[in-house]
Amino acid sequence: MNIILPSLATDQQRVVIVGGGFGGLALLKALRNSPFQVVLIDKNNYHTFQPLLYQVATGGLEADSIAYPLRKIVRKYTNLYFRMAEVETVDPETKTVFTSIGELHYDYLVIATGSQPNYFNFENIKDKLFVMKSVPQALDLRSYLLQNFEAALSALSIKHQEEKLNIVIVGGGPTGVELAGALAEMKRYILSKDYPELDFSRMHLHLFEAADRLLAGMSEAASKYAFRFLKEMGVIVHLKCGVKYYDGVTVSYGDRETIVSDNVIWTAGVKGKTIMGLEKAVISGDRYQVDSTLQLREYPAVYAIGDVAAMVTEDLPKGHPMLASVASQQAAFLAKVLLDPQKNRPAVFRYKDMGTLATIGRNKAVADLGTFRFHGAFAWFLWMSVHLMLLAGFRNRLVTLLDWAWNYVSYDRALRLIIRPFKK
Amino acid sequence: MNIILPSLATDQQRVVIVGGGFGGLALLKALRNSPFQVVLIDKNNYHTFQPLLYQVATGGLEADSIAYPLRKIVRKYTNLYFRMAEVETVDPETKTVFTSIGELHYDYLVIATGSQPNYFNFENIKDKLFVMKSVPQALDLRSYLLQNFEAALSALSIKHQEEKLNIVIVGGGPTGVELAGALAEMKRYILSKDYPELDFSRMHLHLFEAADRLLAGMSEAASKYAFRFLKEMGVIVHLKCGVKYYDGVTVSYGDRETIVSDNVIWTAGVKGKTIMGLEKAVISGDRYQVDSTLQLREYPAVYAIGDVAAMVTEDLPKGHPMLASVASQQAAFLAKVLLDPQKNRPAVFRYKDMGTLATIGRNKAVADLGTFRFHGAFAWFLWMSVHLMLLAGFRNRLVTLLDWAWNYVSYDRALRLIIRPFKK
Repeated sequence: MNIILPSLATDQQRVVIVGGGFGGLALLKALRNSPFQVVLIDKNNYHTFQPLLYQVATGGLEADSIAYPLRKIVRKYTNLYFRMAEVETVDPETKTVFTSIGELHYDYLVIATGSQPNYFNFENIKDKLFVMKSVPQALDLRSYLLQNFEAALSALSIKHQEEKLNIVIVGGGPTGVELAGALAEMKRYILSKDYPELDFSRMHLHLFEAADRLLAGMSEAASKYAFRFLKEMGVIVHLKCGVKYYDGVTVSYGDRETIVSDNVIWTAGVKGKTIMGLEKAVISGDRYQVDSTLQLREYPAVYAIGDVAAMVTEDLPKGHPMLASVASQQAAFLAKVLLDPQKNRPAVFRYKDMGTLATIGRNKAVADLGTFRFHGAFAWFLWMSVHLMLLAGFRNRLVTLLDWAWNYVSYDRALRLIIRPFKK
Repeated sequence: MNIILPSLATDQQRVVIVGGGFGGLALLKALRNSPFQVVLIDKNNYHTFQPLLYQVATGGLEADSIAYPLRKIVRKYTNLYFRMAEVETVDPETKTVFTSIGELHYDYLVIATGSQPNYFNFENIKDKLFVMKSVPQALDLRSYLLQNFEAALSALSIKHQEEKLNIVIVGGGPTGVELAGALAEMKRYILSKDYPELDFSRMHLHLFEAADRLLAGMSEAASKYAFRFLKEMGVIVHLKCGVKYYDGVTVSYGDRETIVSDNVIWTAGVKGKTIMGLEKAVISGDRYQVDSTLQLREYPAVYAIGDVAAMVTEDLPKGHPMLASVASQQAAFLAKVLLDPQKNRPAVFRYKDMGTLATIGRNKAVADLGTFRFHGAFAWFLWMSVHLMLLAGFRNRLVTLLDWAWNYVSYDRALRLIIRPFKK
């Protein structure tokens, strides 16, 4: 069964983009009003602004604010189409994508599927861990934490209460650091007021990082300040320390040390989200190796951008870092390649690092802008401005600004509702 | 196992309120700083503003805006407590409430559990029907409708496409009328733009009402204008017409007439949500018969307010209508009774009708304020003002105002995200 789409005009070619993240969306927009028929396929009908998922999980923002309906973009242009479907496999010989709603022929295929959690040697206990790669996952985490605070009120023993209250985050990258900071603020400003009957000195926030510093993708200065900020906020940071095991109750680490916790969040790694049928191009980390024009090795009409793509060079043995800005710049580059193949074939994609920001708490953020490195209130303000600017849609920006202003002034998080009870 | 709570002071008595709806919340607030220890029990950690659930279902408002965390109210007063739990049964002999998290002794018990859908003779197919009594149900309906619009794109036959697109609402009370209006606007302003590939002349909205007029609780004038407004907006209203059967695909009605629809929404009736153990006071419609002080017949220390209570008199053979304003007024009255039993015992609860409003679409609403009846833009403006005022919390009012302003100016509904795919 074919996916029903308008017939192609004479000489018209079809670009199929799989994934509506930062890369897919930027490419879609860049190909508006182009001669191509462009079909975006995503399993969700919305784009997710992943950098703010942790704020949804901690009740600072609503889910609707960080998601944007893909149809709202597509509907403005007659050459853009959207289909909500899961891509199952690709046949590069016949240039066909097979999806949950039917198959589709492509002239060019762009894989922009992003990344998924990499559990490494914790794969067998992944059902006991929370991850935060999608809106439903962030909402599940929010519900689960809030349920556990309620349950702590009727815990029969101190150990049982600590199990409900303690939170363990595994992985000290941006997601782990930002989440740890947000939870520390939640504990301090919200929980102590909401639950006057509970003794929150029993609640501990642990952050584990196997490397010798947090935010390994940023400068040493950023790592240092992130560590200092988190410590000030009461987070117990374990550096050069991996979690050894988790049985659903007890986290084991270091030299036979343990923490009881029902809330273990995995932010320790990601890997590419590949599609069946293009195995020859897959390299370590489940990413597609692409050439300097982002085309998959061995598959001439297939391209990859963003987290799932690795442009391996001497300088970058693992490819570019998995960042939204890389995906967006690759999308812009690829649009040029597709629109004018002859001229651009010899070109090479070059990533322009616009800087990195991470926020830890109110007035607390770290920034690396080239050699200009700073931290504190100005970095925090910059972080907010940049994220507001990058959010899709005027309504989302306005409500997010309003929620942030509200949270800042009131020291409150308005959105602490267990709207969907969640069981691990 | 007892629910853990601070010990009562000498002579202190405990009031247990079951349910944090309009009645329970108003009573809780009225008993703040009173000599009682007041314990509110609800299965959710938030209060739901039910009159706006249909706007959550149709993407006009976010779920967070119409829900309010109960702990935010309780935490301000030292005599108020909240426990998230399901009440399982009551033993009026020993004055004990049994819940999912343990048991609790009460001196006064107030049942404010509200109402639930009454499926009448459709009980056996209720899994095929959508209802809208809670936030998760409204979100499920939103997701399901949006999923069906996406599925309509790949429907293999016209019948199959109509099945996905057609919406049938059973019950022409306020919920049915307001939902029909909102869906008609969604079809007109959103769907036709979002799905240029679909022919929306194939999509029909049906509203069934067994009585001879819509909004039976309002004036004849209101019924007339509601009917006219819906007709103008393209809703097919069937009066004096009940649905006979629904097999999951085909709705049968009238004289062997049929509609294919995957989206059937039940707004045809509600009944009280009673608790096991107090059977002697239950009357028709699953409500507790209460005396003029709202005390249950035969159970001296047990009271009921709101939808679950029926104060049967000669004028009111079925008790008061199930309205938020009745619940709130009963809560205020009951607070006085509990706080000063001697003085108020002979008193009689009297409901003061403040008027009724229902909205059908932009600039289209009907209002009955005593003998003053009107419709149109001013009624619509009044409806919005009153609902904004009644919403709990400054943040919720602000975001709701913003969303309404946005929807009005842009003819858009920002929140059309299938955040949690839902299967019937």
